[in-house]
Amino acid sequence: MKKKQINIAVVGLGQVGNYLLNELNTKKKDIEIKTGKKINIEAISARNVNKKRKFKIKKEIFFKNPLEILKTKKIDILFEVIGLSDGMSKKIVETSLKKKIHVITPNKALIAKHGDYLGKLAEKNKVNLEFEASVGGGIPILRTLKDGLATNKIKKVIGILNGTCNYILSEMEKSKDSFFNVLKKAQMLGFAEPSNPKFDINGYDSLAKVRILSALAFNKLVSKNNCLMEGIENIELKDIQIANQLNLRIKLLGITELINNQLFERVHPCLVGKDSYIGNINGVMNAVILRGKPIGETALQGEGAGPGPTSSALLSDLVSILRGNIKYPFGIPFKKRKSIRNYDKSNYINSLYLRFEVKDKPGVLSKISKKLARYKISVKRLIQTPDKKNNKATIVIITHKTFEKNIIKCINSIKKKEYLIKAPTFIRVGNFNEN
Amino acid sequence: MKKKQINIAVVGLGQVGNYLLNELNTKKKDIEIKTGKKINIEAISARNVNKKRKFKIKKEIFFKNPLEILKTKKIDILFEVIGLSDGMSKKIVETSLKKKIHVITPNKALIAKHGDYLGKLAEKNKVNLEFEASVGGGIPILRTLKDGLATNKIKKVIGILNGTCNYILSEMEKSKDSFFNVLKKAQMLGFAEPSNPKFDINGYDSLAKVRILSALAFNKLVSKNNCLMEGIENIELKDIQIANQLNLRIKLLGITELINNQLFERVHPCLVGKDSYIGNINGVMNAVILRGKPIGETALQGEGAGPGPTSSALLSDLVSILRGNIKYPFGIPFKKRKSIRNYDKSNYINSLYLRFEVKDKPGVLSKISKKLARYKISVKRLIQTPDKKNNKATIVIITHKTFEKNIIKCINSIKKKEYLIKAPTFIRVGNFNEN
Repeated sequence: MKKKQINIAVVGLGQVGNYLLNELNTKKKDIEIKTGKKINIEAISARNVNKKRKFKIKKEIFFKNPLEILKTKKIDILFEVIGLSDGMSKKIVETSLKKKIHVITPNKALIAKHGDYLGKLAEKNKVNLEFEASVGGGIPILRTLKDGLATNKIKKVIGILNGTCNYILSEMEKSKDSFFNVLKKAQMLGFAEPSNPKFDINGYDSLAKVRILSALAFNKLVSKNNCLMEGIENIELKDIQIANQLNLRIKLLGITELINNQLFERVHPCLVGKDSYIGNINGVMNAVILRGKPIGETALQGEGAGPGPTSSALLSDLVSILRGNIKYPFGIPFKKRKSIRNYDKSNYINSLYLRFEVKDKPGVLSKISKKLARYKISVKRLIQTPDKKNNKATIVIITHKTFEKNIIKCINSIKKKEYLIKAPTFIRVGNFNEN
Repeated sequence: MKKKQINIAVVGLGQVGNYLLNELNTKKKDIEIKTGKKINIEAISARNVNKKRKFKIKKEIFFKNPLEILKTKKIDILFEVIGLSDGMSKKIVETSLKKKIHVITPNKALIAKHGDYLGKLAEKNKVNLEFEASVGGGIPILRTLKDGLATNKIKKVIGILNGTCNYILSEMEKSKDSFFNVLKKAQMLGFAEPSNPKFDINGYDSLAKVRILSALAFNKLVSKNNCLMEGIENIELKDIQIANQLNLRIKLLGITELINNQLFERVHPCLVGKDSYIGNINGVMNAVILRGKPIGETALQGEGAGPGPTSSALLSDLVSILRGNIKYPFGIPFKKRKSIRNYDKSNYINSLYLRFEVKDKPGVLSKISKKLARYKISVKRLIQTPDKKNNKATIVIITHKTFEKNIIKCINSIKKKEYLIKAPTFIRVGNFNEN
C-alpha cells in the first residue's frame, strides 16, 4: 500500500462488529506507529440504523445495504463480520475482492465453503483475503502455519476448536449437571447461541475450522469431503462421571492428518487422559497441537471466541495488510494447491469406550461378550455396576484397538436385543502419545 | 526483493549450522513455491575447512574468514550461527547490514546485548534483521508478538525459556538424583553444554531471552537493567521432594512485566502448582504465557532448543524476508522505541519457601519464629521433619506475601546462628492465577 490514509469499511454490527469498531477507534495511533498508515472508518453497515448502540454513528457513513458502500465510497479494506456461509457475506466479499479491496473476515463457514474460490479471486486481483479470526480466536494459529512454521512438514493437527462445547463438557463435570441444563446455562452466560446453538453442538463449527487448518497445514485445497462429524449432544453426565473414575476426560476434538497421503479429517468426542495436555484445556479455552518436522510438537492455547480475542485476530490481519505483507490467502499460490484423496474412514482403527445399560438378569454379560468376540473386538477393561433398586446394570467396556466398522456392526447387532434398556453409547478413546 | 535468485551465506557450521544447511538444500523447492524465489547457497564459513562432515562442501564456496565472503561474493541474505555475544558474530552481522545484506540469527546473546544498535543499522540500510530462533526455538513467539498479537496491550510474559534447566529439574524429580548427577547426564545426552554449561544453569541464557521478549512485548528498547537473576545451581533434590509433597514443582521462570509503567524483568526458580499449566511443561520443552488485552491469556509451547526447532525458526525468518515482509526488527520504528524505567526490585512482594536445616534441640523453632515475627513475616504453612538419627531437623516454611527485602534481612540475621547446620534455602512461590 503506497498511500498513507487507508479507508476502512465494517460490514455487520453484531457483538464482534461493535467491539471491532471500538478497537479500531482506540488503536488508530498504535496502528500508525506499527505500520506508518492512518486508518479512517469510511463506512459502516448493519441491518438496523436506528438500533440503540453504545456509541453514535454518523448518519453519512451508515449504510443499510453494504453493496451501496462499494458503489459510493472509496474503500481500501473491508471487514466482513456478518457471519453467513453464503448470502450477503459471500456477495460482499466477492464484490469487494473484484473491486481490488482487501477483505478481512472471521467467518469460518464462508471460508470453509468458498475459501478456494474467494482466495483465487483475491490472488487474481492482487489483494489480501485474511481470516486469522476464523480459527482459534485469540490463538494466532493460521499465521503460525503460514509464517512461523512455514517450512515444516506438518503431519497432524489436533484441536479443541469450539469453546461452547468445551465449556459445556467442563461444566457438566464440575457441576454434575445434565447436558440440557448446562447448555441452558451456557446460553444465559453468552457462551452458546441463544436461538440456535446447533452448529456449535453438533460439530459443524469445529469441522469448518478443521477444513481451514487442513488447507493451511498441508498446502491443499479446502476439502469438501464427507467427514466423520459427531457432536456432543449425546454425551451424558454418566459418561463424564465414569470417565472421571477412569482418570479420563471427554473432549470434543477436531483432528486432521495425512495417512499415506490421504486426508483424514474428523470431529468427534474423545476420551483423553486427565493428565494429558489436551485433557487440561478447560472451559471456553481453545487449543491446537501441531506435529511436524523438524519442529516436533508445538501447542498453542488461548481464548477461542468472544469479541475480544476475535478483534485481536482481526486487527492482526489489518496490521499485516497495512505492512504490505504476503498476499496468498492460503500461504502458497492457488495453482500449487492440489485437492487431496480422502482417507477411507472404514479403515479407522481405534480403542473405544462402550456403555451398555442392561436389565439385571443372568447371562447378559456373557451374551454381550460373545457378540464382541464374534466381531473380533477384544476387551481391555470391563466394569459392571449393578443398580439393584432399578433392577438394571451398567456395563462399561474399553476395547483394544479395533476397526470402528466392526464396533458399529456389533452394536447394530445388539441394539434391538430385549436385554438392552437403551441404545449403547460409544465414545472414541484417544491415544495422543503415539506417532 | 525484486530479483528471483537469492544468494545465501551460512556463517558457522556447528550443530545448528549443519542442520540448517541440510534444511536449505532439501527445502529449496518448497521455499520457491511459498515465496517465488530460488535460493542458492553461495558461501559457507567455518573455522576448520578440513573437519570431517556428513556432506561434501565445494572448496570454492568455503571461507575460513567470513568477512572475506562479503568482499568477494554477492550475498543477499546471511545466516549468523556462530553464537558469540561479540567478536566475529557482531562483526559479521554489522558488516553485512552495512552492505545492505539481510541477516538472520538465532543468537540471543548478540541480540540482547547489541540488538538495538544492530536493529537501527538494519532499519537505516532498509534490510531485515530477523531473530525468531533466539527465543523459544520451535515456538514462533517473536512473530506472535510482532504480528499475531500486534495490537494487543501486553501486560506480562512468563516463560520457561531454557530447556537445559527444565530438563534437569524434571529429571531430578523423576530419577530422584542430585543436581550434579543429572547435569552430567544432561551433558551426555547433549541437552547441556559439555564444556561450560554455566550460562544455561545460572539464568543468563533465560535473561537474554527475557530482555528480547520485553523489547517486543512492550515496544521498548532492550533493557540493560541490572535484573534479578538466579539460576538452579542451588536447587537440591530435597527441595524438589518437599515441593512434590506440597503438590508443587520447581521451575526456572523468566518473567517480564510492567508494574506502574516500570519494567520488572527477572529470572529465578519458582514453585508452581503441579496442576498449573506451567507446572506441566516438563523435560526440554519451553513455554511462554502472554497476558494482554483484549487477548486474555495465550500460551505457546514447543521444543525450545536443538538444531531441528532452531532451523525451523531460521527458515521461517528466511521465508518472511523472501516474501518481502516488514523490516522493523522490533516491530516498530527504532525512533518510537523508548527506554523504560526499571522497577525497584526491593518493592517485590512474594510468598516464599524457606528451608532451614537445624540442630535438633529445644527452642530452635521458637527462635526462628521470633525472628520471622520481628521482620513482619507471617507464616502460611510450616512443616518440621525430625531426623533423629543425625540429630537434626528440617523446618520448611511457606510465608504469606511479604517484601523480599525483609526475608533477606531476616535470613541474614539468622544464618550465622549456631543452631543452623547450613545457610537457609529460599525459593519464590508463584501464584499465576492472580492478575
